[in-house]
Amino acid sequence: MASWKELIEDKRRRQQESIPKDWLITPPPETICDVTGFPERCGLLSEKELLITNTVDVDTLLAKLASGEWSSVEVTTAFYKRAIVAQQLVNCLTEVFVKRALARATELDEYLKTTGQVVGPLHGLPISLKDQICIKGLETTMGYASWIGKYAERDAVLTEILYECGAVPFVRTNVPQTLMWPETYNFVFGRTVNPANRNLTSGGSSGGEGALIHLKGSPLGVGSDVGGSVRIPALFNGIYGLRPSYGRVPYEGAVNSMVGQDSIPSVLGPLSNSISGIKAFMQAVISRKPWEKDPLAVRKKWDEEAYALSEHGGGGKLCFAIMWDDRIVVPHPPIIRALEMTKAALLAAGHAVVDWEPLKHLELANAISAIWKAGSGDDFQATTAATREPIIRTMSPVEGEAMDDETIRPEETGISAYQLWQIQRERAELRKEYLDHWQKTVEITGTGRPVDAIISPGAPFAAPPHGKNGYTNYTKVLNALDYVSCVVPVTRVDTSVDVKKPAHRFLNALDESNYNQYDPVVFQNAPIGLQVIGRTLEEEAVIAMAEIVDSALKATAAA
Amino acid sequence: MASWKELIEDKRRRQQESIPKDWLITPPPETICDVTGFPERCGLLSEKELLITNTVDVDTLLAKLASGEWSSVEVTTAFYKRAIVAQQLVNCLTEVFVKRALARATELDEYLKTTGQVVGPLHGLPISLKDQICIKGLETTMGYASWIGKYAERDAVLTEILYECGAVPFVRTNVPQTLMWPETYNFVFGRTVNPANRNLTSGGSSGGEGALIHLKGSPLGVGSDVGGSVRIPALFNGIYGLRPSYGRVPYEGAVNSMVGQDSIPSVLGPLSNSISGIKAFMQAVISRKPWEKDPLAVRKKWDEEAYALSEHGGGGKLCFAIMWDDRIVVPHPPIIRALEMTKAALLAAGHAVVDWEPLKHLELANAISAIWKAGSGDDFQATTAATREPIIRTMSPVEGEAMDDETIRPEETGISAYQLWQIQRERAELRKEYLDHWQKTVEITGTGRPVDAIISPGAPFAAPPHGKNGYTNYTKVLNALDYVSCVVPVTRVDTSVDVKKPAHRFLNALDESNYNQYDPVVFQNAPIGLQVIGRTLEEEAVIAMAEIVDSALKATAAA
Repeated sequence: MASWKELIEDKRRRQQESIPKDWLITPPPETICDVTGFPERCGLLSEKELLITNTVDVDTLLAKLASGEWSSVEVTTAFYKRAIVAQQLVNCLTEVFVKRALARATELDEYLKTTGQVVGPLHGLPISLKDQICIKGLETTMGYASWIGKYAERDAVLTEILYECGAVPFVRTNVPQTLMWPETYNFVFGRTVNPANRNLTSGGSSGGEGALIHLKGSPLGVGSDVGGSVRIPALFNGIYGLRPSYGRVPYEGAVNSMVGQDSIPSVLGPLSNSISGIKAFMQAVISRKPWEKDPLAVRKKWDEEAYALSEHGGGGKLCFAIMWDDRIVVPHPPIIRALEMTKAALLAAGHAVVDWEPLKHLELANAISAIWKAGSGDDFQATTAATREPIIRTMSPVEGEAMDDETIRPEETGISAYQLWQIQRERAELRKEYLDHWQKTVEITGTGRPVDAIISPGAPFAAPPHGKNGYTNYTKVLNALDYVSCVVPVTRVDTSVDVKKPAHRFLNALDESNYNQYDPVVFQNAPIGLQVIGRTLEEEAVIAMAEIVDSALKATAAA
Repeated sequence: MASWKELIEDKRRRQQESIPKDWLITPPPETICDVTGFPERCGLLSEKELLITNTVDVDTLLAKLASGEWSSVEVTTAFYKRAIVAQQLVNCLTEVFVKRALARATELDEYLKTTGQVVGPLHGLPISLKDQICIKGLETTMGYASWIGKYAERDAVLTEILYECGAVPFVRTNVPQTLMWPETYNFVFGRTVNPANRNLTSGGSSGGEGALIHLKGSPLGVGSDVGGSVRIPALFNGIYGLRPSYGRVPYEGAVNSMVGQDSIPSVLGPLSNSISGIKAFMQAVISRKPWEKDPLAVRKKWDEEAYALSEHGGGGKLCFAIMWDDRIVVPHPPIIRALEMTKAALLAAGHAVVDWEPLKHLELANAISAIWKAGSGDDFQATTAATREPIIRTMSPVEGEAMDDETIRPEETGISAYQLWQIQRERAELRKEYLDHWQKTVEITGTGRPVDAIISPGAPFAAPPHGKNGYTNYTKVLNALDYVSCVVPVTRVDTSVDVKKPAHRFLNALDESNYNQYDPVVFQNAPIGLQVIGRTLEEEAVIAMAEIVDSALKATAAA
């Protein structure tokens, strides 16, 4: 059997060969940090292809595809070329399968021409998929050398459903080994970097998606989130991303880490440059009754009434609660500025805003980490045993440098099933406390309802340098609570306003270390987003409220 | 500290004292097996009280309560007296709190008189609760000596919601120690027996509920089901019982065994002498938005369209599939007869009937057992440690006699969290296979839909003698699959027709042993029910289909 290094060499060669020769470009030198303008300047995309790929509103794309104004072949080709440019800039792709995607697009175009009908609500739209979501006949390596050569015998349920909806899966995107990192690096495909500043991380574990969509190399992508893996890349790349509740989007048939860990299920969720992309994806997938194909998918139709905010007073006057910090790590100045901007925008739009009192976030974060660690070490060991590839111990490019977040170390030894149950019990108690805490806000909102949504940082910093994304509690606690969270982009780090503040009274060593790491120059140009958070199975309402936040921000920016 | 025996002695004395002296009767001698007629003959209940308690249709009771024709005090008193008679016949109660219940009933009557309005959809109705569902200020011992003196500091969420619905919680009912037995015996309260034949078990673990409702000592009760614990007592007592999906009914605030075991959640479900009781309970509880009080309760409204069988062709012509056996243990003759009766009734009502092909029931049953055993031994040990009461090893009254079902032994040593994940993974794969298997029946139904519901035995026998309920796979596999199952009573063992059949070709040693245990005389008069099974979160449709099965059976019986 070949060594893991040989396997990787072969895989990389095959990946390189899968890229059409005439789509190869001369990338800018490594010293150029911001590469976001490069796809428009590189000359590979025609004017129409630039027009298509710059159309960030997915509803507009879908309308043009459905009317036949733009063919699926045109749209798929345009995004494919831009995705391949992105690959050469930030290393975001794993599987490239141009012929297959274009054959599919051709079929869809013919269907529309012949019948005058669309195949489904996502007709003709190219969609990128994280390197977990199987496509029949393609490898799914998930960053493991040990999984090279593992060709999927069937489509994941989500892939099936996307086909039924008329979509064109067209690339797969990079992940960290084990998935259990908030950055994106593995031995097989290497590191994905942030297009706004290649010295910064694109986040993880859906970091390939984040970077790809950031560069408009895909109009809509699918990631997974067990602790923030959809939201962190969305936040760090200035795009939208949704973490749905357990089972709202079918996971069946996708590969994963720690399979069988039932307590904190990972979920699949969309990322896009437009909130309309998030909604189109959720509505389309749910309309296909995923529960008929995935036993863990919740039998719950798309609820137009909930989307009309029927349980939130119709949406006219909402009460948002701002979480300024989680009482563990105080966010850096640009994050606070984003919260202030959002508060002002919401007030200007006529909504009420109160402060959110975080409750036991440390306990929630500890519980979720302990649940993962209960068996993660054995899982990673078992997965890598075939080739004895090393298990990656840090995301830092600096040899031997550790990361802050000790909760995601994979070298842990496991615990007993009974011990695991005790942690799960504690976590269930925390969920009950949090729900009661939320319900109790009915006393302070003035709307007669509890807080409609929480506005929260997704991290205490903008995209940090590689190996420095060491604090994930802002996203992770929501996986423990199973709350719906939609990331909305707000602003970018601006060295002229986001100056370092005088030291505050530190909450703990982690808070102090986070304060010390802030230097506006390091984070220059990094995008900043926030989370709009609703309760379990409130996908429809959270999307509607994210639209409201987004519109309010755009209205203030325009004013 | 008092020894566990002293604690029990004290608890029993207090239980005895909680029963009004003038409700004590002279029970029939132990040699009288069938005591179902005794409550009517014992003289304690007035004619009106008999009329009230013989009103098995819960909708009728609710209508009379809502109109004020019968007061809640009258109805509660009537059922209370009958419950106390039942207690003296079959030992089905744990907590008795007459004053508290009558005070509540009085309040409700006054509210109705004053406002002309009902408090909620269950206004005035007495409801019995399994000895897990906490009521503020009362002990919840759950059959553990170690929990004697553990007074609830607050109501379980379900109790709260029942109060909001206008119900009158009025007794709590017996369970087996650990709950993990399909019979009902513990050191604190002793054994609950079957009213139709006191030599037979009332089933378990909601055996107190089963026996109480069997004797019409409660119009509606709530049990829990992690492997059959609502359905087995329903089957063995000739009543209706529903196992809802995970999280459809709020469990929060109830005590339980193996708390923190997240993979196969126990569920609460109703038992009643009428299918209208099942529906009234589910509709009322869900209408109160349990997800606002229980973070694990599914945010899913009661769906009238689903109840109108919108996903089952409107209900006009359904296709039922009969599971004649599970390919492991062939049911006894009366069970087969019940299946044949049901098939004939459904055909006569114009529905289609096909055979159900069970898929990997042994694997499913093994998975669920292994998940429980992963930590159950440690759990029982930890719970009983306070008093060192022994952990019960058999439900048999015969010293040292073991039961067949080795899957529910509590003395197991645990496994690691990682090992547990591997079993959970396998179980998830089985769920997917089963779902695909069900969907594939679209090819044989002739309705254009997959099979609408499965009709299945709930056990391969009618209520067996104490200590002999050794096979629970017919119910347990549905907990592994999270399918909704409603027990519908069908017939009773009739020695004149249910004669022993010649031996079939045995499937295995268990099948042979089950065959050998059949003797019609032993099971004489035992009720027989069947399960009507739908898929996850199909509560509304399953209730509607159970109504159809029930009506079809009643129509054939009347013909």
